[in-house]
Amino acid sequence: MDKESRFLRACRRESVDCTPVWFMRQAGRYMEEYRALRKKYTLLELCHAPELAAEVTMQPINRFDLDAAIIFADILLPLPGLGLEFEFAVGEGPRIHKPVRSAADVERLRVFEPREELGFVLEALGIVRGQLPKSVALIGFAGAPFTLASYMIEGGYSRHFVLTKQLMYSEPQAWHLLMDKIATVTGEYLRAQVEAGAQVVQLFDSWIGALGADDYRDYVLPHSKKIFDSLSDLDIPKIHFGTGTSGYLELMRQAGGTVQSVDWRMPLDQAWEKIGFDSAIQGNLDPIAVLCDQDTLKRKVFEILENAGGRPGHIFNLGHGFLPQTPVENVEAMIEWIHGYKAS
Amino acid sequence: MDKESRFLRACRRESVDCTPVWFMRQAGRYMEEYRALRKKYTLLELCHAPELAAEVTMQPINRFDLDAAIIFADILLPLPGLGLEFEFAVGEGPRIHKPVRSAADVERLRVFEPREELGFVLEALGIVRGQLPKSVALIGFAGAPFTLASYMIEGGYSRHFVLTKQLMYSEPQAWHLLMDKIATVTGEYLRAQVEAGAQVVQLFDSWIGALGADDYRDYVLPHSKKIFDSLSDLDIPKIHFGTGTSGYLELMRQAGGTVQSVDWRMPLDQAWEKIGFDSAIQGNLDPIAVLCDQDTLKRKVFEILENAGGRPGHIFNLGHGFLPQTPVENVEAMIEWIHGYKAS
Repeated sequence: MDKESRFLRACRRESVDCTPVWFMRQAGRYMEEYRALRKKYTLLELCHAPELAAEVTMQPINRFDLDAAIIFADILLPLPGLGLEFEFAVGEGPRIHKPVRSAADVERLRVFEPREELGFVLEALGIVRGQLPKSVALIGFAGAPFTLASYMIEGGYSRHFVLTKQLMYSEPQAWHLLMDKIATVTGEYLRAQVEAGAQVVQLFDSWIGALGADDYRDYVLPHSKKIFDSLSDLDIPKIHFGTGTSGYLELMRQAGGTVQSVDWRMPLDQAWEKIGFDSAIQGNLDPIAVLCDQDTLKRKVFEILENAGGRPGHIFNLGHGFLPQTPVENVEAMIEWIHGYKAS
Repeated sequence: MDKESRFLRACRRESVDCTPVWFMRQAGRYMEEYRALRKKYTLLELCHAPELAAEVTMQPINRFDLDAAIIFADILLPLPGLGLEFEFAVGEGPRIHKPVRSAADVERLRVFEPREELGFVLEALGIVRGQLPKSVALIGFAGAPFTLASYMIEGGYSRHFVLTKQLMYSEPQAWHLLMDKIATVTGEYLRAQVEAGAQVVQLFDSWIGALGADDYRDYVLPHSKKIFDSLSDLDIPKIHFGTGTSGYLELMRQAGGTVQSVDWRMPLDQAWEKIGFDSAIQGNLDPIAVLCDQDTLKRKVFEILENAGGRPGHIFNLGHGFLPQTPVENVEAMIEWIHGYKAS
């Protein structure tokens, strides 16, 4: 069995020679190769230059024995197309210049054609696909409607999501229009990424854990579902990512995706049971475990592998992205343990 | 049935005339009475002056038809006794001057006698108990070992709890000693609060949702359990509070408490089933729902009441504390709806 089939086969819950592994934010500040590039370019400059984005995407592939590459991009890249300019303020994360605060602001948002406005991402995908060994699959991605809406409304990262929830609860019509516009653009954007070479897509609903199950069902699920439904003719694995979702993993699955991505807040076997063993699963390692000594890390990695129990459809990953202080040698070691593991 | 028994009876899962209600952070910045006092005194000055702390505790009781008062204090008050000075930096939350970063730092922490160092809280409890109508129960509280440890290690509020988890994973001996010292002091502190007039105690593990279930079981549960076990001779309700705990509510109960407090991330009936219907339950309302129009708020409040289904042992509360921008009239309306509700 060659490596290409290992990752894609696991997504389809077919048998594999060993557990495939990739990591969220596997390209990034923890790698000196990336830091060197960031001395010359800003994050957005790297995203907008296809050759550079491709180079960053390939950095972890060239260094580690990973089973998948994920295109280097940012979930906020579609914002300017929608009509919202933003920047990354130094050390502070994203700043949206004129956040969405009213129904009128939502009305003004433009449903755009991602093949025009986000061509640079598509081009980067094409370059990476040409450089990737056949054995490594290429993942495209986009932010999910709730997570994107939260940035668009709050104007940046939020702790309590007060403005987001206020708009959601108090102006449901404006909320659903906003979510629908994001979903329409996102569906097309992911389709365009597949056309450009992505073999798998991942929908990132990073902050969805701020909501309860009922609100997720009423205000979010239909819109994330619209995206997955719009891609149903594409015979590729679709990964659905969230954090803090232990309370409604089964609803995340209902929204869509053939692989569910879980954080570390519930043991993998329990989460998988809730999702259903007839779905594939990825995630579960706390990114902070990777900052510890290797004995500790090894114990955490093996706990997850043992909880997976050799069931078909397990892809090893973090519950969220690598932190900048992640030691490269721990990443290397993890991959070796994971590939060397045999379920008993 | 008089009101006193309503709250205490619900904690014991006995029958009640209507659902009892109190709110976390029911005394605070959303009330003009409190803001007026804060113009003259800092938060810590209010906590340290028993007459003032009692006055603040009574503010929401004098204004609303609440079924319980919670002593005005801060979970960090035990820190100086342990040997850690801290302050509230303007607009930034707590700042611990010399955070705990090593086994030696943990060794130095002093297991102190709360009756000496925290006498001002105990005095405030006595004053409040004398002022409270007999129908309103008085709740004492303390921070749980994990949440206190996270502040002591991070030096303030944290988003990722990197340093906390690193110490926990990499120096388990130092971690368990730290947790044990906090648990010893906290158990005595809660006992002293009961001696001083508290009729119920609540253990706040506000940030415990940062951990996964296995880590909660290995690194936290034994220490929270030690506190509850140490109070087992006291025949009073004990409330166990956490947020983000949908993944291991049953473990929270295992640690202890006769009332489990849940956030909004899982419907109340599902959470209650996980905890066991033979336990009392409080919480579940998203504090941000209280910032919305009353139609929306009413819908959310009734959803919870209906999910409770008239089962014995339901206390209405938020999933976390009131935000400063909470409209007083919404608080008033909610209490009326809750007390007027009859389970069908």
